[in-house]
Amino acid sequence: MNAPVTFDQLEVGYDVPALPGMDASDIQTPCLVLDLDALERNIRKMGDYARAHNMRHRVHGKMHKSVDVAKLQMRLGGAIGVCCQKVSEAEVFVRGGIKDVLVSNQVRDARKIDRLARLPKLGAKIIVCVDDLANVAELSEAAQRHGTTLECFVEIDCGAGRCGVTTAEAVVQIAQAINAAAGLKFTGIQAYQGAMQHLDSYEARREKLAVAIAQVEEAVAALEAVGLKPELVSGGGTGSYYFESNSGVYNELQCGSYAFMDADYGRIRDKDGNRIDNGEWENAFFILTQVMSHAKSDKAICDAGLKAQSVDSGLPVIYGRTDVEYVKCSDEHGVIADPNGVLKVGEKLKLVPGHCDPTANVHDWYVGVRGGKVETLWPVSARGKAY
Amino acid sequence: MNAPVTFDQLEVGYDVPALPGMDASDIQTPCLVLDLDALERNIRKMGDYARAHNMRHRVHGKMHKSVDVAKLQMRLGGAIGVCCQKVSEAEVFVRGGIKDVLVSNQVRDARKIDRLARLPKLGAKIIVCVDDLANVAELSEAAQRHGTTLECFVEIDCGAGRCGVTTAEAVVQIAQAINAAAGLKFTGIQAYQGAMQHLDSYEARREKLAVAIAQVEEAVAALEAVGLKPELVSGGGTGSYYFESNSGVYNELQCGSYAFMDADYGRIRDKDGNRIDNGEWENAFFILTQVMSHAKSDKAICDAGLKAQSVDSGLPVIYGRTDVEYVKCSDEHGVIADPNGVLKVGEKLKLVPGHCDPTANVHDWYVGVRGGKVETLWPVSARGKAY
Repeated sequence: MNAPVTFDQLEVGYDVPALPGMDASDIQTPCLVLDLDALERNIRKMGDYARAHNMRHRVHGKMHKSVDVAKLQMRLGGAIGVCCQKVSEAEVFVRGGIKDVLVSNQVRDARKIDRLARLPKLGAKIIVCVDDLANVAELSEAAQRHGTTLECFVEIDCGAGRCGVTTAEAVVQIAQAINAAAGLKFTGIQAYQGAMQHLDSYEARREKLAVAIAQVEEAVAALEAVGLKPELVSGGGTGSYYFESNSGVYNELQCGSYAFMDADYGRIRDKDGNRIDNGEWENAFFILTQVMSHAKSDKAICDAGLKAQSVDSGLPVIYGRTDVEYVKCSDEHGVIADPNGVLKVGEKLKLVPGHCDPTANVHDWYVGVRGGKVETLWPVSARGKAY
Repeated sequence: MNAPVTFDQLEVGYDVPALPGMDASDIQTPCLVLDLDALERNIRKMGDYARAHNMRHRVHGKMHKSVDVAKLQMRLGGAIGVCCQKVSEAEVFVRGGIKDVLVSNQVRDARKIDRLARLPKLGAKIIVCVDDLANVAELSEAAQRHGTTLECFVEIDCGAGRCGVTTAEAVVQIAQAINAAAGLKFTGIQAYQGAMQHLDSYEARREKLAVAIAQVEEAVAALEAVGLKPELVSGGGTGSYYFESNSGVYNELQCGSYAFMDADYGRIRDKDGNRIDNGEWENAFFILTQVMSHAKSDKAICDAGLKAQSVDSGLPVIYGRTDVEYVKCSDEHGVIADPNGVLKVGEKLKLVPGHCDPTANVHDWYVGVRGGKVETLWPVSARGKAY
């Protein structure tokens, strides 16, 4: 094998932050860096957990939007496929070779439904969520037009307060309509409690999930009473998967953030009161940034601002450092309090972003690093696929 | 000319939210929509203002990241070129044919400096900001290596508290070093007061700018005293351009947001106490979104969440509506309070995002609309170009 290409050999401009084989110290900033060892340990750990608890794991692809990460989760973690939130994301995962894709969301626009109904032609099983009887007819019409089958979950709102129905009667009514509709198959229940995932207290999360589990149990009983036992009952996230796994009613998990971790999830506590990024999961996902001005002695300016991350869930944390703190974020700059003036211009720092999902969505590449070397570049395959 | 292509004629999947010629009602959501009439009026108005005040206008390309919008600002608004914040953005603008580009930021990484120093070979004048003597030698070495000239602004921190020096002595010291360095040219001063642009009160903004202008006047006098009169004194934004224009010391503006407007800028007041989005500038920039669930009677869920916008400066405002309100934003969903249940599933709404710059940065396309028809699709040419 020849020596790796370096940036010095390239002409004006390039659209990648790194090249495989280069030293990690040469990565261009700001960019996303994956610690491949930590990522693989997280993936194997969740895979082992799911297997031990006899749960299917459908990893949430909306978090990383990467075909490569999803395939790693299938290969190392035994994931059975992915869920995602948009038809355009599903198109990317199906084209990338993933054969079991749940759109864990409603699809209501006629053109989007048309695109969704075409996807099974590419050899994939496609499941979509329904929370409205009118949607059943729309989906059925499109599936028939394309000669395909769309599988359907009825979505229960079990506390997120967004989409989904709230009564067992509504679940049964929609499931029966799906069951009766040509081109559709009633496959199960979507019951993801998103609102509690980020509650710090384990006990507070347990209480919220107990309510959700009771709702799901009631819906399942009502469905069984009309002969529509759900094949899949799907839900669970990084802050709750142990509750669903031990519920006796869920049989599929949808965790996403466990693989990367972020600062907001990291702060929540496990049952022993420990932060979940301190033992349960490792930080595998970072924004690499560089100090680009230190004109004031107590303040360093780095090159990762709002164009390199989302701050909806708080500012990023500087990984492994307590002597300096990221205190302000503007379009292209981060202000780092450096009271002792320890940072130097040109120095690189790893930031743990506040929220992994929308942070991944502003970048084009993941730079995978192992042992101080760039091992791989993975595209953020479904970046910007919001429609 | 043939009839326009429609989505119905395309096969599985497409990566554009609209096609030229289609009805605006067929645009796929969520996506960015530009009201071309409003955009052109904003651009002409600022162009007329700058001309009447004998100011150059170097439009801020970091806001829109679009070669097409920048060229419209040059053609209709007399802009002399662009400024931007990153070398990778400058590469996009130069390759797009823009010949006068200021990187209104420090460039300190050796590889980024190398890329910057290559850009003049493509026929563009390149200016970069400096706030540290050590950077002068770095830039000079690279310019000599490539046989190019890099023009330099000394950056004054006139209140933003980020990059830039704070004393006239430091300005003179760096300007003299630039002037003495091979491959570099001392061209002027960067003095953008970013921190005051979003203060609601006109009088509060005026007071902050008065301080900045005094700093700049002192620096210019000190430079003239050593025979280094700056050719350009550059700064000014949408919340301050009238102060710089009437200062007698600035001769170049750097406004960006005036062209698009956003909810956060819209709230600030002009000298008569009116919101600036109510007469001074028009909203030309929207996120088009669609209602995709209404399972609760008082709450509509739309398809534009954190993957379709940045909420760092607040939630989006629903354009032209007071009966419904965007109240919560999660990864893929917006929750709209709809107390009277007036919204229907499938209905489309225009959102004015809180902050235009980082919102544009998550999208791949601008859909330009006029008279109810899609007139053009412009790529967000420098989207994600953060390095």
